Amino acid sequence: MRSDGGREIGIGMLGYAFMGKAHANAFHKISYLTWPPPLVPRLVSVAGRDETAVSEAARRYGFERWTTRWEEIVEDPAVGLFDNLGPNFLHSEPTIAAAEAGKHVVCEKPLGRDADESFEIWQRVAATGVKHLCAFNYRFVPAVRLARELIDAGALGTIRHFRGRYLQDWGDTDADVWRFDRAAAGSGALGDLAAHVVDLARYLVGEIDEVGGFLQTFVEGREVDDAVESTVRFANGAVGTLEATRLALGRRNAFQWEVNGTEGSLAFDMERLNELQVFRADGDRARGFKTVLVSETDHPFWEHWWPPGHIVGWGDTFVHELHHVLAAIAGDAQVGPHGATFEDGYRAAEVCDAIVRSGESGRRETVEYRSLAAD
Amino acid sequence: MRSDGGREIGIGMLGYAFMGKAHANAFHKISYLTWPPPLVPRLVSVAGRDETAVSEAARRYGFERWTTRWEEIVEDPAVGLFDNLGPNFLHSEPTIAAAEAGKHVVCEKPLGRDADESFEIWQRVAATGVKHLCAFNYRFVPAVRLARELIDAGALGTIRHFRGRYLQDWGDTDADVWRFDRAAAGSGALGDLAAHVVDLARYLVGEIDEVGGFLQTFVEGREVDDAVESTVRFANGAVGTLEATRLALGRRNAFQWEVNGTEGSLAFDMERLNELQVFRADGDRARGFKTVLVSETDHPFWEHWWPPGHIVGWGDTFVHELHHVLAAIAGDAQVGPHGATFEDGYRAAEVCDAIVRSGESGRRETVEYRSLAAD
Amino acid sequence: MRSDGGREIGIGMLGYAFMGKAHANAFHKISYLTWPPPLVPRLVSVAGRDETAVSEAARRYGFERWTTRWEEIVEDPAVGLFDNLGPNFLHSEPTIAAAEAGKHVVCEKPLGRDADESFEIWQRVAATGVKHLCAFNYRFVPAVRLARELIDAGALGTIRHFRGRYLQDWGDTDADVWRFDRAAAGSGALGDLAAHVVDLARYLVGEIDEVGGFLQTFVEGREVDDAVESTVRFANGAVGTLEATRLALGRRNAFQWEVNGTEGSLAFDMERLNELQVFRADGDRARGFKTVLVSETDHPFWEHWWPPGHIVGWGDTFVHELHHVLAAIAGDAQVGPHGATFEDGYRAAEVCDAIVRSGESGRRETVEYRSLAAD
Amino acid sequence: MRSDGGREIGIGMLGYAFMGKAHANAFHKISYLTWPPPLVPRLVSVAGRDETAVSEAARRYGFERWTTRWEEIVEDPAVGLFDNLGPNFLHSEPTIAAAEAGKHVVCEKPLGRDADESFEIWQRVAATGVKHLCAFNYRFVPAVRLARELIDAGALGTIRHFRGRYLQDWGDTDADVWRFDRAAAGSGALGDLAAHVVDLARYLVGEIDEVGGFLQTFVEGREVDDAVESTVRFANGAVGTLEATRLALGRRNAFQWEVNGTEGSLAFDMERLNELQVFRADGDRARGFKTVLVSETDHPFWEHWWPPGHIVGWGDTFVHELHHVLAAIAGDAQVGPHGATFEDGYRAAEVCDAIVRSGESGRRETVEYRSLAAD
Repeated sequence: MRSDGGREIGIGMLGYAFMGKAHANAFHKISYLTWPPPLVPRLVSVAGRDETAVSEAARRYGFERWTTRWEEIVEDPAVGLFDNLGPNFLHSEPTIAAAEAGKHVVCEKPLGRDADESFEIWQRVAATGVKHLCAFNYRFVPAVRLARELIDAGALGTIRHFRGRYLQDWGDTDADVWRFDRAAAGSGALGDLAAHVVDLARYLVGEIDEVGGFLQTFVEGREVDDAVESTVRFANGAVGTLEATRLALGRRNAFQWEVNGTEGSLAFDMERLNELQVFRADGDRARGFKTVLVSETDHPFWEHWWPPGHIVGWGDTFVHELHHVLAAIAGDAQVGPHGATFEDGYRAAEVCDAIVRSGESGRRETVEYRSLAAD
Repeated sequence: MRSDGGREIGIGMLGYAFMGKAHANAFHKISYLTWPPPLVPRLVSVAGRDETAVSEAARRYGFERWTTRWEEIVEDPAVGLFDNLGPNFLHSEPTIAAAEAGKHVVCEKPLGRDADESFEIWQRVAATGVKHLCAFNYRFVPAVRLARELIDAGALGTIRHFRGRYLQDWGDTDADVWRFDRAAAGSGALGDLAAHVVDLARYLVGEIDEVGGFLQTFVEGREVDDAVESTVRFANGAVGTLEATRLALGRRNAFQWEVNGTEGSLAFDMERLNELQVFRADGDRARGFKTVLVSETDHPFWEHWWPPGHIVGWGDTFVHELHHVLAAIAGDAQVGPHGATFEDGYRAAEVCDAIVRSGESGRRETVEYRSLAAD
Repeated sequence: MRSDGGREIGIGMLGYAFMGKAHANAFHKISYLTWPPPLVPRLVSVAGRDETAVSEAARRYGFERWTTRWEEIVEDPAVGLFDNLGPNFLHSEPTIAAAEAGKHVVCEKPLGRDADESFEIWQRVAATGVKHLCAFNYRFVPAVRLARELIDAGALGTIRHFRGRYLQDWGDTDADVWRFDRAAAGSGALGDLAAHVVDLARYLVGEIDEVGGFLQTFVEGREVDDAVESTVRFANGAVGTLEATRLALGRRNAFQWEVNGTEGSLAFDMERLNELQVFRADGDRARGFKTVLVSETDHPFWEHWWPPGHIVGWGDTFVHELHHVLAAIAGDAQVGPHGATFEDGYRAAEVCDAIVRSGESGRRETVEYRSLAAD
Repeated sequence: MRSDGGREIGIGMLGYAFMGKAHANAFHKISYLTWPPPLVPRLVSVAGRDETAVSEAARRYGFERWTTRWEEIVEDPAVGLFDNLGPNFLHSEPTIAAAEAGKHVVCEKPLGRDADESFEIWQRVAATGVKHLCAFNYRFVPAVRLARELIDAGALGTIRHFRGRYLQDWGDTDADVWRFDRAAAGSGALGDLAAHVVDLARYLVGEIDEVGGFLQTFVEGREVDDAVESTVRFANGAVGTLEATRLALGRRNAFQWEVNGTEGSLAFDMERLNELQVFRADGDRARGFKTVLVSETDHPFWEHWWPPGHIVGWGDTFVHELHHVLAAIAGDAQVGPHGATFEDGYRAAEVCDAIVRSGESGRRETVEYRSLAAD
């Protein structure tokens, strides 16, 4: 019981590095920036392989305890939400175990290392009835949510085009070892970056029917792909392209996408994540894209923040995302459609797998989606 | 003989509308802006179907005579250069006839309506020995030439990625009728816009080996494609995407491309045609893309123009292009590699055809290039 | 009499360098790009000091004759319009003489080297009844005219702010010698650059009442000012700043201005001269500045040009400006308010002089404007 | 004593609204994002006038206690740092009292309502020997610090120009009542916005010698200024302009500045606070401003954050600022030159006062700075 009488929820986290920092920071901020918070996060336990590192992370972020065995978190009665930020190969078993132990679950993207693993995770977790979110955090960028709201309101009319690319440029380094390990990561730019593009394509435009493309590895000795190139066709008739690379020098975190419809267009670049480019075919003689600084009092998530024009950062997207999960757990909201459920995580994996198949077969590949038996 | 003793060349032009205006304007300007001009253009004759319109065009642009029969231009001994700006279905016969009559030839892009027709034009014209240029004028944008020069100088290292897209948004109108007529145009966005992307991809990166994609028609009753989506693989190992559409609302003339290499990157948007974005991996702590206003005294074509910072317009690219042709005819330069020869026109058509085939077959298609028998 | 029966007007030009090239080019293009032209310019005569250079300029630009004595042009009965592009010290005498000989006159800015000289020119020329235009060519940038039209239509409501700065960076060179010579130029950045800012401030916002500022010389041995800094107060209550410098490294031709009103704002940068930034306080949830590519069929001057999105260059502003003068001479239009008359040239000089006085007095200075006796 | 043995410091805060939220958030984040923190902030007490609101703020942000009497904080032995975020009229007395009670002090800008009050605060606090920081938080934007470091490293050579403007557009509302009250605020845009411009001008360029300008009120009945316009002259010879307004429609938080030197230029806009525009006169043929995304591992403050390209928000500047204060208190660093001391707060007030005097006198005014008697 917190001081103001709000309900708490115990957080158990697997992983403490880049994403661990981002999530721990978000849980701290939720308790006072989103006011009143739907549930007050209490950092109960953190798990990791390195005893020294995980104990320091616990002290740093204020977890009550730490462990080198994630199973301890799964068994911990004080934990209500299991937040899996481990490398891809550690997504499946702990997440399923946590859900089967009755914990709500958040799992980093990609959900599994391929569609089969992702489906298994979804199926097993869905059967437990807990809340589940696949951490495609870019849905929680204010400009992305505003884009979705504008599209939902008909501002674009019928969508004809999506072109999305996620460009980074650190691929010539060996900085992040597990991401270059096929067994640990499953894939390279595909699961790391292209999966984000697929998820936002689905969130903004709709279901993907067909892809045609391939993966490319440039760096000698690299086990995983450095880049992905694909065309894409949506169920609603829209067409476009989908790219990802870790080798676009000068592009640090350039997740860029554009959507064109019969009534307007939207464009975005994550390196300017507070801005949305908006074109409306409204007949105004002054015709052009607006640079919208997404920070107005009536803009998404802005009730938590500052006066207009005082922008947020990349780390703040996790505040929105995890707040959304807590609201869903508290019963105030559903995870979907604004949060990515494990079904969304699975569906993104099917699209990624289809690109892999297309690369191997030389053919455009239809994306087939499985349903849960009970559905 | 002109007043200063320079040699003249008689120009015969087929077509007088959008492109006719652009070329006539360029010929006028060459005679005093590029000083001394390699040859002084003399506007001898212009041909077109509509007698009223073509006669007015002759008066307007200062042609000595006009005709409704292009054959008259081909036979005109005063004409040294035949400039074919007619619709696509009028590229083949008049261009070949002019060349066989000993005229040098410029032909608007796409060279033919498909690879077969383009090959025929190239083959027949090459056999005559005249100079030939396929009017891919965007090679003559100062920023594009600077890009090529930087690449030639090694500023990008080994190229890994090309992503090019030509976005326009007039496709919902019926404004430009012959471009929507399959027999007259051959294709829609493919030959009109994607061909430009293919040409610059070849000019900047190199030969294209493989494409995978499709054409898309959105507008009901439209005979030709409104959009093209494709992946692309180059002979040198670079990969990327290639798009074109007439239905990207808000994008008026957005021919955008980006090239990433092991040492740097370049990016461009035709709506800001005086700017080149340049990234160098030079270790400078201040790391980022430079916005280069391509207007320095040591920048391409700038010897013809103004002090730095006083930018040129779209129409000025034709001054550079046609000046280049005249220099080649005068013997001061070759058409290639900076000008697109008919071989370049043909090769672009092979890539476009391969995208068509890929759309039909569902497979990535290898691009096969024919050689001239004599080669 | 030209071939289509249109009336001709003989052009006599003083000066043949940078501005001579820009004006000669414009006269050539007017005859076929603005169709039908109000009067067909015929390049009769060009004057300059250097015999070799002026004779080559005549041959290059197609003048019928040349002279080293401008008086010959003034006396030439074939000349109907005297276009004075000489250095500032040559503005007064030839321009007045030409007008008194019954020629219409165009004079480069600044009109005179100070307000007294400018007033004298205006007074003497106005007395003759000829048409007169002070060549503030930036009024003829399509984006600037569109800005004026939007303001006239009330899009900004009541104007509160103007901030204008003209930034160049060649001031450390000795490239353009007469511009650094006090006797020849009168001033440095003041008459060269700040005068443009003053003119557009007056064109867009209204009359200037008061200035407070100073001139600054940085380069050792420089006779004229390198920079101007000033605050400004308009008759309608708007306030702002006004700057000019030749020493802003990286800014090649950055004439930037912004206007804020009670209903909207406009912003502009000459380095992107085809773009206007437009903000409307219209309550749209997607709130922001539009980047308007000023190239629509209903945009200013666009009836002369290309399809939307195919941008014009700096040199093309002179086509608009000189076309406007020819239309005025032909009786189709007035020089003002869209063209700067010599009165406008004089009034800009009064503002510039007031900044000089303020620099010397240390006080904000009221700008007092003289009227013609006959007014 | 915190769990890891680090020393704690008790924070007492006056104010809990906009700035209270920003500072409380920063103190929370410092304890785990800046690792190890120089001192661990412990939120001891918060003061405010409204009992309901201040008690809720205490609960929200996790203060141990709250009070409606700031004197209680000053007397509280658990408080080591007094953080004054109250309205301007509450800066003087509580800050001085806290310092005299031996607390280190942070005070929001402007330090006092005018130079006299600011001098009094500085003088009285300096006499106590505590650490003092005037919360000009924009010094702690990574791009601003990088700018300073580049300037210190000589990247700009000798500075010639500064032009700074802080543009907002909420001035037609009555949203923030005390800021429109002359007695409470002292001034309007002057102390609120122009003071920031003055502070960064001093931080980046150096001491200001002379200003010439005025304050302007547009809104009827408004007690304070809506806008400030001024020229500025620095001790080192640089000149420029300085503006602030709450009435620039479309500019939400556009604190824009540019510095030009003999070797390079820098430019910045707070609406894109992660970007610095950098121009170097290095002779590169690709000449232009770089858009530097300030997020590299060797960029200021980045050791606390994410991988390159993952940008920070406005709120994060307070993490940097208050971390800096804690480091100074812990003895690891000095407040200046990177933090603004109360002397800096006082000097900014002298410049602001000089603009007020200039507006009244109509003269450019020399800025005279007082020293402490003991100096």
